[in-house]
Amino acid sequence: MKRYLASAIALSAALSGPALADDAALRETAKDLFGAIPLQAPMLENNVISRDRVDLGAMLFFDPRMSKSGLFSCQSCHNVGIGGVDGLETSVGHGWQAGPRNAPTMLNAVFNVAQFWDGRAPDLAAQAKGPVQAGVEMNNTPDNVEATLKSMPGYVDAFAAAFPGEAEPISFDNFALAIEAFEATLITPNSRFDQFLMGQDGALSDQEKAGLQLFVDTGCASCHGGINFGGQDYYPFGVVEKPGAGVLPEGDKGRFAVTETAGDDYVFRAAPLRNIAITAPYFHSGKVWDLREAVAIMANSQLGEDLNDAQIDDIVAFLGTLTGEQPEVVHPLLPVRTATTPKPAPM
Amino acid sequence: MKRYLASAIALSAALSGPALADDAALRETAKDLFGAIPLQAPMLENNVISRDRVDLGAMLFFDPRMSKSGLFSCQSCHNVGIGGVDGLETSVGHGWQAGPRNAPTMLNAVFNVAQFWDGRAPDLAAQAKGPVQAGVEMNNTPDNVEATLKSMPGYVDAFAAAFPGEAEPISFDNFALAIEAFEATLITPNSRFDQFLMGQDGALSDQEKAGLQLFVDTGCASCHGGINFGGQDYYPFGVVEKPGAGVLPEGDKGRFAVTETAGDDYVFRAAPLRNIAITAPYFHSGKVWDLREAVAIMANSQLGEDLNDAQIDDIVAFLGTLTGEQPEVVHPLLPVRTATTPKPAPM
Repeated sequence: MKRYLASAIALSAALSGPALADDAALRETAKDLFGAIPLQAPMLENNVISRDRVDLGAMLFFDPRMSKSGLFSCQSCHNVGIGGVDGLETSVGHGWQAGPRNAPTMLNAVFNVAQFWDGRAPDLAAQAKGPVQAGVEMNNTPDNVEATLKSMPGYVDAFAAAFPGEAEPISFDNFALAIEAFEATLITPNSRFDQFLMGQDGALSDQEKAGLQLFVDTGCASCHGGINFGGQDYYPFGVVEKPGAGVLPEGDKGRFAVTETAGDDYVFRAAPLRNIAITAPYFHSGKVWDLREAVAIMANSQLGEDLNDAQIDDIVAFLGTLTGEQPEVVHPLLPVRTATTPKPAPM
Repeated sequence: MKRYLASAIALSAALSGPALADDAALRETAKDLFGAIPLQAPMLENNVISRDRVDLGAMLFFDPRMSKSGLFSCQSCHNVGIGGVDGLETSVGHGWQAGPRNAPTMLNAVFNVAQFWDGRAPDLAAQAKGPVQAGVEMNNTPDNVEATLKSMPGYVDAFAAAFPGEAEPISFDNFALAIEAFEATLITPNSRFDQFLMGQDGALSDQEKAGLQLFVDTGCASCHGGINFGGQDYYPFGVVEKPGAGVLPEGDKGRFAVTETAGDDYVFRAAPLRNIAITAPYFHSGKVWDLREAVAIMANSQLGEDLNDAQIDDIVAFLGTLTGEQPEVVHPLLPVRTATTPKPAPM
């Protein structure tokens, strides 16, 4: 934990000199710390973003028949119409069970270093295999997913097109790869912050620029940096002071469950802040609905700073400029079930 | 009940003469009994299908925040990707309760004489008010829906545009009208049957034409007529012979609950058969998954006919030609919640 604290303080100190004089200087500072969302999906290391694969991924993403109940799809908790979240404290899954953590957005998630709040999945394909099998989420099995897919000619054809030349195009691995390919296209370029970064001084108001400066000077950027303003590394929730159990439930030790390493208790991946203004509620617990309150808690617990109302307003105004162009998604037509398609089993 | 039986037999007898000799004669018969789905949404008597109203209706249709839990939207049970149904025997709603009846499709529902299996809603606007309030579905209240809508500037603006000149654009009535306007656009023109009806002999195979002829001759068309092949009138399930309780649960007396009229027990609106090949499972109970079995049960229970396998195959082949072009729906971006937006309450 000391390591995080030390680096946070060091970076904060380095940046909190006299206020930067002009837009050009602020832009240079921002360019050092952050990056713009590209206009097009990035290349992936272990996957191919072909049109066929993306289209198949969209079908799978929206298909509730991938869950045991027939009720839930990826879209249920990662709604393309609500910034990629479900707007619940924690998601509701199979049998009306409450999930343990707030659903993070899949928008721009391709730019995170790893997936889930604790980073236990190295990429979006690995992530896609989780909820479909989780008992409190979609409660399905890889075998049943494959049987469902193989029962429908529409999926047989779509997998063959998306994975050409493969002897067995339908597999749980390819199911995950197709979803990853689709999700890699779900990016939100051209936010006002990105416009500013690319040279448009007028893209941000004076208050928003002050908020950006404060975001840097206070030290927020030491964890929430990079293209996604977070999602790049792991930090304890409560570097300086632990929030109450209402915000940080004691039962969820975060990354400790992944690494089983001393010091990793209550450690989480720094939340990416892209589109944060439209993805309430906040934190892995989903207990905070107001972005002002979330900023105040973070400043206090992570940086030991008590921001005043005006400072919080400025930072929140700046965070609003991270909302980018939301992807336009045509709801896919899903393959028609057949007599051999496993029936949904909600009860 | 006698009335339905008599008219069914009379129509059946009138039409079951010698087989029609050619395509032109078959087309004329079909034109007398059925109609084609138009290419554009029809005019409505008490509503205006403006672009603003349709766009607002799409937002409302897809917005899970219209439910108390924040989990369910219209789309949950009337999935635009699955022929307008959810593919469950009966829908699952608030608190993981099973609904009493199979979710009917909203595709082409604008052409039905009334809505719901028992016709208790005169139009789609009245229908839209039902599930949102039903305890086993979305479990919300009109007051909470209105409060939710009024809390979001995105909805305030969208209602003002959709209902110009009104002093209070946001109301539960206008909520329903906007959904109706959107749903009126969800029609499926240009099915192969409609192509045949409009003069293209080659649109149907010989087997499909034989199935159409048999559909008419057996008497199916006496209840399943009109533009939607059903949805126009009410009939007892089991005109000739009642199916077992597995298919026709004794506890659901159908339209009797609406009219409280002797003879209306187990009476339901004849199911519209447009897109029937892609909307399993079947009947108000959702207990039958195989369209062949559904056809056999109907012929037996409603018409006293024991169809052989070849006849069933022909009718099922014909029914497959009623699948039209599915509407292409862009998933709407939903308004951003604010501090005054009522929180979802799933638990």
